[in-house]
Amino acid sequence: MEYFVGIDIGGTNSKIGILNSDGDILKSTSIKTESIEGVDYTLNKIWGTVLELSDELDISRDMIKGIGMGIPGPVIDQKKVGFFANFPWEKNINISEKMEEISGIKTRLDNDVNVIALGETLYGAGKGYSKSVTIALGTGVGGGIFIDGKLISGATGAGGEIGHMKLEKEGKVCGCGQKGCFEAYASATGVIREALSRLQINKNNELYRLIDGDLNKLEAKHVFDAAKKGDKFSLEIVDYVSEYLAMGIGNVLNIINPEVIILSGGVALAGDILLDKVKEKLPNYALGITIENLQIKLGQLGNDAGIKGASALTI
Amino acid sequence: MEYFVGIDIGGTNSKIGILNSDGDILKSTSIKTESIEGVDYTLNKIWGTVLELSDELDISRDMIKGIGMGIPGPVIDQKKVGFFANFPWEKNINISEKMEEISGIKTRLDNDVNVIALGETLYGAGKGYSKSVTIALGTGVGGGIFIDGKLISGATGAGGEIGHMKLEKEGKVCGCGQKGCFEAYASATGVIREALSRLQINKNNELYRLIDGDLNKLEAKHVFDAAKKGDKFSLEIVDYVSEYLAMGIGNVLNIINPEVIILSGGVALAGDILLDKVKEKLPNYALGITIENLQIKLGQLGNDAGIKGASALTI
Repeated sequence: MEYFVGIDIGGTNSKIGILNSDGDILKSTSIKTESIEGVDYTLNKIWGTVLELSDELDISRDMIKGIGMGIPGPVIDQKKVGFFANFPWEKNINISEKMEEISGIKTRLDNDVNVIALGETLYGAGKGYSKSVTIALGTGVGGGIFIDGKLISGATGAGGEIGHMKLEKEGKVCGCGQKGCFEAYASATGVIREALSRLQINKNNELYRLIDGDLNKLEAKHVFDAAKKGDKFSLEIVDYVSEYLAMGIGNVLNIINPEVIILSGGVALAGDILLDKVKEKLPNYALGITIENLQIKLGQLGNDAGIKGASALTI
Repeated sequence: MEYFVGIDIGGTNSKIGILNSDGDILKSTSIKTESIEGVDYTLNKIWGTVLELSDELDISRDMIKGIGMGIPGPVIDQKKVGFFANFPWEKNINISEKMEEISGIKTRLDNDVNVIALGETLYGAGKGYSKSVTIALGTGVGGGIFIDGKLISGATGAGGEIGHMKLEKEGKVCGCGQKGCFEAYASATGVIREALSRLQINKNNELYRLIDGDLNKLEAKHVFDAAKKGDKFSLEIVDYVSEYLAMGIGNVLNIINPEVIILSGGVALAGDILLDKVKEKLPNYALGITIENLQIKLGQLGNDAGIKGASALTI
């Protein structure tokens, strides 16, 4: 038997799993990333954890044929990381080389959202499709484009950064410093911003009651929950967000023309109350030919998508 | 020696060439497409022309190893045409099969702009790059995405239809029936629309004099020519168009992250007066990492791009 390691490096925690060649997770765990201790410390700690997991599974080191990693930053040629978002690590570190030195095992990496897209496409909602775009609607908005067996990772690792596609010429300021980004409207943060803004002038609504008038409590989920209860104020926010979601997805359809769009992340969990509106509005933005046979699906793998996709990088 | 046929089927005329495996055109000609006579008539007429050209070159039929065609419409699996823009031909015709029956030679097709992109990437401005996006700024706006040896043609042949990416939520009406399309702003038609609209309220400018006050005469080229002469009225139109061009190109960079953007078509011929402004505005729309090493080039092959790219479909 051949085994593969999937690693999803996050800002706080890193998930590590040992998988078979079918992408089944045989054993996995989560450790503190502790990026502050430096890149060598973190990689050695990860490798130590891999050895522990493989011991528990009674798998010898030579049966591990590859290590795959999802990285919070742009990855070039599946080896080098342009920069780490939020880590005090240098630019342009060749993580593949470093990990291969430590482990003696072939290592490949890609951007964390690209790796989630790979996981969902190969083992989750996109199984059986050869052209997919996965859109992660979380704190930010990320994307992963998968075409005929390969991720579109881009020349400098920014392939699939659809969250920073501009939808308004002088729109809302985004965390990236630019204006009008898809992310500024369709992320969980975008939902919260819009709700907070509207709550300043209207407190007579179900949403305000749901958070007991404490604006610090507000999460995107509250907006969707209140909308599901029929709160007109929240339904209007959902409508506002769905318009931008349809516009952003429509643009992706016109450019990439995939067979399936996979939505993951907190905003996607809103479910039909949001998705039905997006589907209704999509024909205003996407060319008819791109939606004829299109499937729009929710991600199926949840937190396992990263590990599964990472393991597939070396299969 | 092995030879290849490149065909660029247009609404009025079709260009046909015989090329070697390096993409050099050995002989080419142009014939009337006469789509009104039906698909079989047109394909047979094209094949007759191929035989004439090969006779003149003293090339026997068995030395022709492939036929490639650029098609005005969406092409699925390089064989079937979803529909022909402006041709009275049926939907979903398998042109590859029909041409192979007529000629006995392997035939592949793709969308005409995708084929231009392939030509420019392999033999023109994109030579040596493995990730390119070609943007044809003509009557409309088309795009062709080339990644690691392959065109992104899409699930139903609409891959690279960047002209219908939406840049304004309730923007100018586009020929496709939707609103706010990139094409409605950055095509030659878009330039003319904007100029005509502004000329209604301002006739005291160089542009108006250049067309002798005859609005029917107005072409995009006049706007660029007047701007080059320093006409403030025309410079403002160029500025307006460059803003949308930067936004559209920026979105493509964030999604695809290519090494090179190749601009072709009439609007691209405006040259530096437009390009300098686009480059200046691009950092407002594209993530920094996508423009660090980016090249923006003008297409080099002109009308030969289609034939050259088409011939490469079977090489």
